[in-house]
Amino acid sequence: MKTVGIADTTFARYNMGAAAIDELQRLASLKIERYTVPGIKDLPVAAKKLIEERGCELVMALGMPGPKAIDKQCAHEASIGIITAQLLTSRHIIEVFVYEDEAEDDNELAGLADRRTREHAQNVIRLLFKPEELTRRAGTGQREGFEDAGPLKV
Amino acid sequence: MKTVGIADTTFARYNMGAAAIDELQRLASLKIERYTVPGIKDLPVAAKKLIEERGCELVMALGMPGPKAIDKQCAHEASIGIITAQLLTSRHIIEVFVYEDEAEDDNELAGLADRRTREHAQNVIRLLFKPEELTRRAGTGQREGFEDAGPLKV
Amino acid sequence: MKTVGIADTTFARYNMGAAAIDELQRLASLKIERYTVPGIKDLPVAAKKLIEERGCELVMALGMPGPKAIDKQCAHEASIGIITAQLLTSRHIIEVFVYEDEAEDDNELAGLADRRTREHAQNVIRLLFKPEELTRRAGTGQREGFEDAGPLKV
Amino acid sequence: MKTVGIADTTFARYNMGAAAIDELQRLASLKIERYTVPGIKDLPVAAKKLIEERGCELVMALGMPGPKAIDKQCAHEASIGIITAQLLTSRHIIEVFVYEDEAEDDNELAGLADRRTREHAQNVIRLLFKPEELTRRAGTGQREGFEDAGPLKV
Amino acid sequence: MKTVGIADTTFARYNMGAAAIDELQRLASLKIERYTVPGIKDLPVAAKKLIEERGCELVMALGMPGPKAIDKQCAHEASIGIITAQLLTSRHIIEVFVYEDEAEDDNELAGLADRRTREHAQNVIRLLFKPEELTRRAGTGQREGFEDAGPLKV
Repeated sequence: MKTVGIADTTFARYNMGAAAIDELQRLASLKIERYTVPGIKDLPVAAKKLIEERGCELVMALGMPGPKAIDKQCAHEASIGIITAQLLTSRHIIEVFVYEDEAEDDNELAGLADRRTREHAQNVIRLLFKPEELTRRAGTGQREGFEDAGPLKV
Repeated sequence: MKTVGIADTTFARYNMGAAAIDELQRLASLKIERYTVPGIKDLPVAAKKLIEERGCELVMALGMPGPKAIDKQCAHEASIGIITAQLLTSRHIIEVFVYEDEAEDDNELAGLADRRTREHAQNVIRLLFKPEELTRRAGTGQREGFEDAGPLKV
Repeated sequence: MKTVGIADTTFARYNMGAAAIDELQRLASLKIERYTVPGIKDLPVAAKKLIEERGCELVMALGMPGPKAIDKQCAHEASIGIITAQLLTSRHIIEVFVYEDEAEDDNELAGLADRRTREHAQNVIRLLFKPEELTRRAGTGQREGFEDAGPLKV
Repeated sequence: MKTVGIADTTFARYNMGAAAIDELQRLASLKIERYTVPGIKDLPVAAKKLIEERGCELVMALGMPGPKAIDKQCAHEASIGIITAQLLTSRHIIEVFVYEDEAEDDNELAGLADRRTREHAQNVIRLLFKPEELTRRAGTGQREGFEDAGPLKV
Repeated sequence: MKTVGIADTTFARYNMGAAAIDELQRLASLKIERYTVPGIKDLPVAAKKLIEERGCELVMALGMPGPKAIDKQCAHEASIGIITAQLLTSRHIIEVFVYEDEAEDDNELAGLADRRTREHAQNVIRLLFKPEELTRRAGTGQREGFEDAGPLKV
């Protein structure tokens, strides 16, 4: 049985980790390792530890950057770290970030965080078990959490 | 026979992977390994895995960043990761990114994505089989997908 | 007994190192290694040395970037370095940065620096001894030094 | 006999590679390895390959970023990669970038590209054979391609 | 006897290397290795070579970025490289950068470059021989080259 890691934060205002675990377990039989850290800049090393020390084949890194300029810079730094962690381990770490200014109010933001997390969990299942399904969707304008953009109309 | 990797995304709105494979196979006898991931930030590790785990001598990393500021930041992060992946493997990963705001409408954007992908596939063939052809073109203002800028007029 | 490293700076205008040590020792029995460097850009290697040469299981990296644009760029560079240092050692380095423009006056800034440092020290204790407590707080909008944002109201 | 690598691009609008080789050979007896790639983001791995696979002691990385914002971002990414490549090989890779907006017209730009390349080739000779000459010039405001700024007037 | 490396540039308009060596030798008995390179982007690998090939325990990296936007970007890239070089060697590389727009005229700029270099050389001595003196100064708002900001007034 494959092990998937869930790295999430106490900074986030929605329990994205719970949503990810619920969706993954709904779709497949997997062992889940969860590791909650304070903020998004703690996610890169948490993901690396999940891979190296707790046997995860793939990790989801879940976070909700705040609305300030400094928060966006933190997200940028975290993203670079998440990419570097992938290159050092040769494993996927699927970043799922939800920005506060992507939604109008708390309700909408919670809905977005839930949908985006679940749609990325579906991608995780495809990466692990059904890569040909991703290739079938190549170039089709998929958007996680929002309506798909779809392929270009030509 | 050399193996070339094609890493592409479901986020893109044009099937750049199919165009790349078509052009490569039109030009040379190659083994192709395709790996489709959700978005451009998943490309660096996908390219590294194609090199390490599936024997690719060179990888094309194909993506279409969205039009928002956050999309451009993602492209920047992906680009840094693609360069790092090259340095860790000492192999070329030819990045082909097409931005939505490079064209006026869907038709033009699809044409650009197709041409840029194919012209970069031609560069791949030169890198693998005809490096002296690249040197002959050095400093001549080549532009993939658009009309060439040409050499400076002096 | 676990060893925690404290990397701090002479550039900072509040003795965050002393606050961190006081809070950690109030909460647990720990060996502390302190390493003071001139500025925040010296923190990444100081943290790595604390881990490699002085046996620290985890390091707190404490700094107060100045108010100028160049200071913010330095903080950005230091943050990237702190993330890289974590990835090279597979250990947490908890960054605690306090920006001068986060407060109205010296009194408020000192209070913020003290509270943020102590609340992050509490996170350190949770990471080392009570990880399940962090997971219980996942997605609850914790903010170190300021009032918590709380979970989204849905 | 020492080997110097020349990494250049087909994107550039001036044959900087030819200028570099001409100047280096005018000044010293060297073996030259040339490697032309499509664009500046391909330069970091090309330089690393020249060092690792073709025995170069030092590499010149020559490029002409385009005038658009995205071109400048590419140059930034390439520069970070060139610095990383140097750190991974412990060898110098002398970056020579010429920006289109540094000159008024094609003639001036070609002159700038030629002079900057040649003056950096002179630096290469100093690094390889006459390091004491560089120290003699330390702090004297040298500017490659433009008139020197000179030392501060005190 | 400890060896300290001095990496400086021909681009700088003040002989910061000479000032650093003078101050270090005034304060302690040290072996000095000096390595002058063309510009600040050459400093990261120069510092790494000083550590790896010439036995330096610590390096000072001295530079004066120019006044243009591209110069500031170069400084940013150099800073990231200097931090990475420290992480790869686990040694301190004390960056001393002086920006042209930090002063009103040449006289003031030269004074600033001299003072900042010397005050950082004093930090080097503390790091090597008197670390407890740095901890005594922790959180006291030290500023190299300018008047100290001092601790927050509470």
